[in-house]
Amino acid sequence: MPIIVVDVMPKPEILDPQGKAINGALPRLGFTEFSQVRQGKRFELTVEGEVTDEILAQARTAAEEMLSNPVIEDVVNVAVLDEAEGAR
Amino acid sequence: MPIIVVDVMPKPEILDPQGKAINGALPRLGFTEFSQVRQGKRFELTVEGEVTDEILAQARTAAEEMLSNPVIEDVVNVAVLDEAEGAR
Repeated sequence: MPIIVVDVMPKPEILDPQGKAINGALPRLGFTEFSQVRQGKRFELTVEGEVTDEILAQARTAAEEMLSNPVIEDVVNVAVLDEAEGAR
Repeated sequence: MPIIVVDVMPKPEILDPQGKAINGALPRLGFTEFSQVRQGKRFELTVEGEVTDEILAQARTAAEEMLSNPVIEDVVNVAVLDEAEGAR
């Protein structure tokens, strides 16, 4: 069944304490190549049947109105998961 | 600066109470097209300079060893964010 992925990230100007904590821990574990880490959310919405434009629009609305907090978060991606990845 | 995206989702056999809660709330708000919702995490790792194969491999290792809990989560995606999306 098709899956719509919604990605939500904290706005750039918003502090991200989880990301900061990871950023502090990475070098201690030997990962020194990353200068910044931000942590957001990924939602997978399963659709029964075909993903029409209407359903995708509904997913976008749900992403803006319910899955994200527009004061502190941006919806950065709403897309249908491609079949190959979806098969996992 | 290039960004590596790491996506982590709860394993299919693991209960996902946050996803279940969203799934219950969606129809009440008029979103009726989605049969299942799962909530995972999205990390954005900023890299200074070019993303070499070595850095991408390090991101994969960090994803498996630090950004996810392999008992309950799967790393479903580690990829460089394409420029167009990264420009936001």
